[in-house]
Amino acid sequence: MGYTEKDWLAINTIRVLAADATAKANSGHPGAPMGMAPVAHVLFNKFMKFNPKNPKWLNRDRFVLSNGHGCMLQYALLHLFGYAVTMDDLKTFRTVDSICAGHPESHDTPGVEVTTGPLGQGISNAVGLAIAQAHTAATFNKDGFPLVDNYTYSFLGDGCLMEGVSGEASSLAGHLQLGNLIAIYDDNHISIDGDTNCAFTEDVVKRYEAYGWHVVIVDDGDHDLEGMEKAIKECQAVKDKPSMIKLRTTIGFGSLQQGTHSVHGSALKADDIKQLKKKFGFNPEESFVVPQEVYDQYHKHAAEGAAAEEEWNKLFSNYANKYKSEHADLSRRLTGDLPEGWEKSLPVYTPKDDAIASRKLSETVLTKIEGVLPELIGGSADLTGSNLTRWKGAVDFQPPSTGLGDYSGRYLRYGVREHGMGAIMNGIAAYGTLIPFGGTFLNFVSYAAGAIRLSSLSQQRLIWVATHDSIGLGEDGPTHQPIETLTHFRALPNCMVWRPADGNETSAAYYVALTSKHTPSIIALSRQNLPQLEGSTIEKAIKGGYVTHEAEGADITLVSTGSEVCIAIDTVKYLADNHGLKARVVSIPCFEVFDAQSKEYRLSVLPDGIPSLSIEVMSTMGWERYTHEQFGLNRFGASGAYKDVYKKFEFTPEGVAKRAVATVDFWKSVPNVRSPINRAFQQLI
Amino acid sequence: MGYTEKDWLAINTIRVLAADATAKANSGHPGAPMGMAPVAHVLFNKFMKFNPKNPKWLNRDRFVLSNGHGCMLQYALLHLFGYAVTMDDLKTFRTVDSICAGHPESHDTPGVEVTTGPLGQGISNAVGLAIAQAHTAATFNKDGFPLVDNYTYSFLGDGCLMEGVSGEASSLAGHLQLGNLIAIYDDNHISIDGDTNCAFTEDVVKRYEAYGWHVVIVDDGDHDLEGMEKAIKECQAVKDKPSMIKLRTTIGFGSLQQGTHSVHGSALKADDIKQLKKKFGFNPEESFVVPQEVYDQYHKHAAEGAAAEEEWNKLFSNYANKYKSEHADLSRRLTGDLPEGWEKSLPVYTPKDDAIASRKLSETVLTKIEGVLPELIGGSADLTGSNLTRWKGAVDFQPPSTGLGDYSGRYLRYGVREHGMGAIMNGIAAYGTLIPFGGTFLNFVSYAAGAIRLSSLSQQRLIWVATHDSIGLGEDGPTHQPIETLTHFRALPNCMVWRPADGNETSAAYYVALTSKHTPSIIALSRQNLPQLEGSTIEKAIKGGYVTHEAEGADITLVSTGSEVCIAIDTVKYLADNHGLKARVVSIPCFEVFDAQSKEYRLSVLPDGIPSLSIEVMSTMGWERYTHEQFGLNRFGASGAYKDVYKKFEFTPEGVAKRAVATVDFWKSVPNVRSPINRAFQQLI
Repeated sequence: MGYTEKDWLAINTIRVLAADATAKANSGHPGAPMGMAPVAHVLFNKFMKFNPKNPKWLNRDRFVLSNGHGCMLQYALLHLFGYAVTMDDLKTFRTVDSICAGHPESHDTPGVEVTTGPLGQGISNAVGLAIAQAHTAATFNKDGFPLVDNYTYSFLGDGCLMEGVSGEASSLAGHLQLGNLIAIYDDNHISIDGDTNCAFTEDVVKRYEAYGWHVVIVDDGDHDLEGMEKAIKECQAVKDKPSMIKLRTTIGFGSLQQGTHSVHGSALKADDIKQLKKKFGFNPEESFVVPQEVYDQYHKHAAEGAAAEEEWNKLFSNYANKYKSEHADLSRRLTGDLPEGWEKSLPVYTPKDDAIASRKLSETVLTKIEGVLPELIGGSADLTGSNLTRWKGAVDFQPPSTGLGDYSGRYLRYGVREHGMGAIMNGIAAYGTLIPFGGTFLNFVSYAAGAIRLSSLSQQRLIWVATHDSIGLGEDGPTHQPIETLTHFRALPNCMVWRPADGNETSAAYYVALTSKHTPSIIALSRQNLPQLEGSTIEKAIKGGYVTHEAEGADITLVSTGSEVCIAIDTVKYLADNHGLKARVVSIPCFEVFDAQSKEYRLSVLPDGIPSLSIEVMSTMGWERYTHEQFGLNRFGASGAYKDVYKKFEFTPEGVAKRAVATVDFWKSVPNVRSPINRAFQQLI
Repeated sequence: MGYTEKDWLAINTIRVLAADATAKANSGHPGAPMGMAPVAHVLFNKFMKFNPKNPKWLNRDRFVLSNGHGCMLQYALLHLFGYAVTMDDLKTFRTVDSICAGHPESHDTPGVEVTTGPLGQGISNAVGLAIAQAHTAATFNKDGFPLVDNYTYSFLGDGCLMEGVSGEASSLAGHLQLGNLIAIYDDNHISIDGDTNCAFTEDVVKRYEAYGWHVVIVDDGDHDLEGMEKAIKECQAVKDKPSMIKLRTTIGFGSLQQGTHSVHGSALKADDIKQLKKKFGFNPEESFVVPQEVYDQYHKHAAEGAAAEEEWNKLFSNYANKYKSEHADLSRRLTGDLPEGWEKSLPVYTPKDDAIASRKLSETVLTKIEGVLPELIGGSADLTGSNLTRWKGAVDFQPPSTGLGDYSGRYLRYGVREHGMGAIMNGIAAYGTLIPFGGTFLNFVSYAAGAIRLSSLSQQRLIWVATHDSIGLGEDGPTHQPIETLTHFRALPNCMVWRPADGNETSAAYYVALTSKHTPSIIALSRQNLPQLEGSTIEKAIKGGYVTHEAEGADITLVSTGSEVCIAIDTVKYLADNHGLKARVVSIPCFEVFDAQSKEYRLSVLPDGIPSLSIEVMSTMGWERYTHEQFGLNRFGASGAYKDVYKKFEFTPEGVAKRAVATVDFWKSVPNVRSPINRAFQQLI
């Protein structure tokens, strides 16, 4: 309360910076920053707790700009508060290698919590951040030690609300009663196609109330700073519901085009900027100007944040004395390192062990490691009994009032919300104290494609437990049988796709997934039983690809993954018995990891001089990179018992042998067959 | 009203059939069919208008089982009414090559309107069916000729409601005031993880009211047939809103396990089935039994449907006399054929024409053909001005009361709802009178992956206008720049992915997309300008790949798509001038279509004896199928002006030449380089 001209000067400074930067870039979105500058000013100065000198301080409040196209608002704020975002950085907005990219990227820009821009993601990430906060608080806070009590704030626009992913996450947030989450909806009535009345006329307040949110309306987001402050306070006081403030604003406030879609996604014209600066008391001939008193005001708040962190550090030191193991655990988690020796808990198998479905092997991994990796938190999109993602004795992450669990629980009931789950996992991972995993059928990982590409881009460590990974799921049929899915995610940069063939490979997949701090993983797991292979070890499998069965003087290399590796191995005998051919077998459970090995190693696995054939019951696309010939399924599958389906498509030793013989014959005429590992030049990375 | 024992016998027959079929398959979902049998009986017998002998009759009511796992309900109904689904077919439920697959597949099973199972899709398809009905009615109905007045009914469960895609489509359905759409929500409180109270506690009624739907509650879906009938009648009477009936049912009604999740996804135990049959007056020793009186009752309603069609045929004949051209137009549309000579409207270019962005070329195509293809209906996910999907003078498809358009309008404002748009397009295409298209950025087509794989599986003709197709979109940066997207959809069976290089190729893409009755297409289009190529013609491009620039005695073939073809062509000169190398250039705008050409033709395009290099500014995955070496981007892009971004990643004549020289050098030592077109064996199709 008690806002003065100083506050308006700061607000208008942000508006003018947004106009200047988009004008210089001749690209970008000035409208949202200009419309939301008032609420940003109130939120950041009156409520948010952060230290720009240490953007990673655990107990900072989190801010997520879900309408990420408005990122000049965020960059301006970061600059004014003294984060490592300089005026020169602002001047390079939207140019190559700038830290002020076209949309906020968390791995590039200090102070950006999550990468946003693709609509609906940010608010869903915010739900994840709030879950992580609630869980971390329930786990570590003690009487007199409120170590973790931060809020998560998110701005979002009409576009975010139209996207289904935000609905999924918001419904779950309401169910989970996340009182630490406050969203501010920029109700500006404008989207790219014009007035929202052309496509978006639902009653948002009523919808969010239906989700179980507390909703407050502020009618004048352009002027009523007191009203905004009051609304945020009111939301903070509601502890058992997430809150939304519906804030009526004028997009591009101050521009001659304010309130229209022409200020949404294009820079203002030169004349418009001039009048804007005049109106706000700036020199129309100057650009990128911040009055010193604005810096002073913002730096003052930043200093308060730094002091708060210092206080917190003392608190955390005292905590160390009283709660030694908790302190050690939390401190370790913040480094991202896993506890020493954790990997000894990974199960190891020998060929004498039973044939087991890899989804079940995954369950065993989770069961064995959950005790040594307390940061592991996960769930399933309503397929717990199929994904086998829940270890015995797990406690559900639930509001205590439900009687179904509590916030220290580590098992999440996501509901049938794959996309929401993916975006929420990004938020949980970004919080800094947890490693999330989530289960669904591999086929439905695709529903979350939008979130997963952001996991990869923003370098989040998280795991998809993707069971029922092929036509091997059988009776559910083509609607549930992935064909294109592995290719899709193998083509996504910085995404590890694993398809383990047995127990040791499953352990290896988890080992690499958990120790790769900056890469998400998708582990594709079978519904059907798989034998424990003779040639597999964790050590070999963590190379992403290795020789499972060696044969001197081999006529062919059979290359495979997952449930088809054992078929390849059976084919070795079939080829010997029926065709007098010698075959070696290679398993490549993870392309990405195999690609990272030395060329020498990769050539030892896929050597020159021998033709190779890949076997995988889905799209062959991408296998041409490793093998000369490919046996796969470039069509949809079939509904039936899995053995019948495999037989229909000839994924049997006999069917593979037929292709192997054709491969050997076809390559006979080529002297010194060259391994596809050999390339004319290196790819850009 | 006036339900008797006969009705309950029919209802229980359906329940027992569902139990028998899932038991025989030892797989499937008996719970939903047993719980929804009463409402299905009421809806199909008292309301639905259809002729089992002609499942394609235009004015039939549409039924969509959005909770597709309950498909034994649908198969049982189809059988009882006399569709071409025999008792023997029911006995093959969930076995290979059965027409009773694990989930309903429209291209396989007569009477199934759309392919469902992946949750949230069906109800969204239903929105599309309702849009198509409203539009077709507005276009063809005349005074005294209510040619098209069918309803679309959809069953859906908790899972469908949790998925974001259904929220997107439902919000739009409310905005569009689709009074012809009636959804029945199977409120059985059970999902796979158990009671819905563990993850889904929102107020569904309130949410749907917020979307602008009319909602009715029926408390006893197990017994209250009169209440169900009354509710459906009430919904039919509401003409300006879609309706939802929230129907409380008991999942697996009649089973000893009724009301629990154990009847959701597994067959009932033998003992349970026995008691079920006894309870319902069936012989517990017999299976797959339908009392004759049930057949009689259902066949009577089927006969009424056949009579209704006969009446309609008369009406349509009379319509022909009065509205000759409309009759001819509608009749033609129902065949799926396009008007003769329509293709003459496709624009043709010569190298003298201006360089134009292919998104703009796409706009020109739409503008030129919309007049000759009245079945074309489309829109954008709130990116109209960027996707350029709206021809001048287009009328919006809007409820007349909004003042923004009317139902005869052919331009759809989808809002920021890509997944909903994809699923709605499936429904529009399935209706039978329209060809839908939808625009968004290529990167956000991924949001709709779940819907697109069903477009492909269910063989729907529809078009994604996917603009801003690469790092060439520039400043928006990596969050918006597709890398994996083309690979993803190229790996999807029966999906055409086009990336035209110029105007003629853009026309070719539309030509093939529009004339392929059973295949969806994604047309990837540039933001930046592209020159009209010397060697391109529509005739060549419709082969999916062709030689753009031939050179006798060439040292290398450069193979490319879209905006990189002109760079490849510039590289020809660069290579000649700087390295004395001769290069030929091939454009492959569509893998799928190129793959369908004769081997002889493909080898003429990518001949033996010459090494080849692909150039495409995204994932190289998949290009190994066509070329020896690949220049692409297996990493995320960058935010900046597009020319700077291209330069950063060396997609310039110089950068391409560097890789071309390396390719020539690398392959020099291999005699008679074999074209990758040569394969050891044929793929399964």
